Amino acid sequence: MHPFDAAVELTPTHDDYLRGATHPAYANMVGPFGGTTAAVLLQAALRHPARLGDPVALTVNFAAPIGDGAFDVQARAVRTNRSTQHWTMALSQDDHVAATATAVFAKRRSTWSAPEAAPPRDLPAPHALPEATLAGRPAWVHRYDMRFVEGPLPDAFDDSEQPHSRSVVWVRDEPPRPLDFASLAALCDSFFPRVWMRRRTRTAIGTVSLTTYFHADAPMLAAQGDRPVLGVVRAQAFRDGYFDHSAQLWDDAGRLLASSHQLVYYRE
Amino acid sequence: MHPFDAAVELTPTHDDYLRGATHPAYANMVGPFGGTTAAVLLQAALRHPARLGDPVALTVNFAAPIGDGAFDVQARAVRTNRSTQHWTMALSQDDHVAATATAVFAKRRSTWSAPEAAPPRDLPAPHALPEATLAGRPAWVHRYDMRFVEGPLPDAFDDSEQPHSRSVVWVRDEPPRPLDFASLAALCDSFFPRVWMRRRTRTAIGTVSLTTYFHADAPMLAAQGDRPVLGVVRAQAFRDGYFDHSAQLWDDAGRLLASSHQLVYYRE
Repeated sequence: MHPFDAAVELTPTHDDYLRGATHPAYANMVGPFGGTTAAVLLQAALRHPARLGDPVALTVNFAAPIGDGAFDVQARAVRTNRSTQHWTMALSQDDHVAATATAVFAKRRSTWSAPEAAPPRDLPAPHALPEATLAGRPAWVHRYDMRFVEGPLPDAFDDSEQPHSRSVVWVRDEPPRPLDFASLAALCDSFFPRVWMRRRTRTAIGTVSLTTYFHADAPMLAAQGDRPVLGVVRAQAFRDGYFDHSAQLWDDAGRLLASSHQLVYYRE
Repeated sequence: MHPFDAAVELTPTHDDYLRGATHPAYANMVGPFGGTTAAVLLQAALRHPARLGDPVALTVNFAAPIGDGAFDVQARAVRTNRSTQHWTMALSQDDHVAATATAVFAKRRSTWSAPEAAPPRDLPAPHALPEATLAGRPAWVHRYDMRFVEGPLPDAFDDSEQPHSRSVVWVRDEPPRPLDFASLAALCDSFFPRVWMRRRTRTAIGTVSLTTYFHADAPMLAAQGDRPVLGVVRAQAFRDGYFDHSAQLWDDAGRLLASSHQLVYYRE
């Protein structure tokens, strides 16, 4: 079993409740990687017997630190329409809420479609780039193969402020794993906090809210398989303890699989 | 009383529950303007006696049409930390959930801060631009003074597909009203759906999810007062019934007040 599947494994307990546990392969400096927390919350809706369609929007709010070990997830379909379904989810430990989430699922119909944003052009292929050096980083980072085209995590945190925080990176699960909605939700949180890129200062950070829009449907994800996706990530503003960053995740045919936004706390 | 204040007025009923009503001044083609719905849900947390700090993130999911008339709002602080507070909200009519929301509030501390995105430069001032022609549009549109620098709502829906959907617009409440968190939340939904701009076809649309990050604190909003803010709005991808658009709202000193994202359903 791939460690990601183990990390998002949930066992129904009663009604809308399931039980899971943090997985050491996705440990962060403290508690689990936020991407797996987002994936677990989405997974609770994905595997719910009342599920309709596929996810189009997911928001996860990280309310408190999650301790290593077991947790409970509640997933409730609060409204089911003909072609959309609205979910609320919560992750608790010892009856204290540690994360909340909402999701919108939809049955898509084939309609007029068009790209508007575009990926950067003429990029080197992933195999032509070196694997990012991940020694000394938390366990979860080793569960991704990252090849930076631009804006790698700095080798040294030397306080040399940069003019911008943009990164362009090919990224996939490590070991390779066919892309699905849960793993795409986690990938959206795999980009290092922009405040580290911008300031080259390792201030304490924590994502407080993460929103992902899924532009891909299941066939698009299946077509991408286990090949790297292209992430383009940038911040918009850093102010008094909070910054936002936005990511685009492109398939290798240049189609937008997901757009993702997050608001991140930073200490100083 | 400004019609916006009337539209977001809520009366506590019991515990975490409040009662409000749609306001004809903010009527949309069907039901109320989504921006006032977002503002009402935020307002329920803003005026809650347990409130800590100011909003930094808000997500609203529009689950079902809202009928003209009374509604109930529940706002619950699910987790209060030392400097952050996590909220879940829901708006119901006749015990059916019509919208859900989550918010993160925070007490900010003064820290290293920096812009990263920048507003367009050398723009004409709002008073140098004509007021947008709003005749024939729903009531809520008349509650905003819009001056388009670029990408106005087309005069004719003539099916002439455009290469992009970007708009740049000075916008303020009409009549003028000092900016606050609730009105900023509503302003974030005042930009016309990008699919209309892009295709010049008036397909049926509906926002399903709206996320706003507040970069401004209360003093920044107070400093802006009732002067127009600058909106820069663009779509990223239109695919099989859903598109996303992202907006930046700048104060007239070029500081980012809010960044906002939404996923919108379109019929064909």
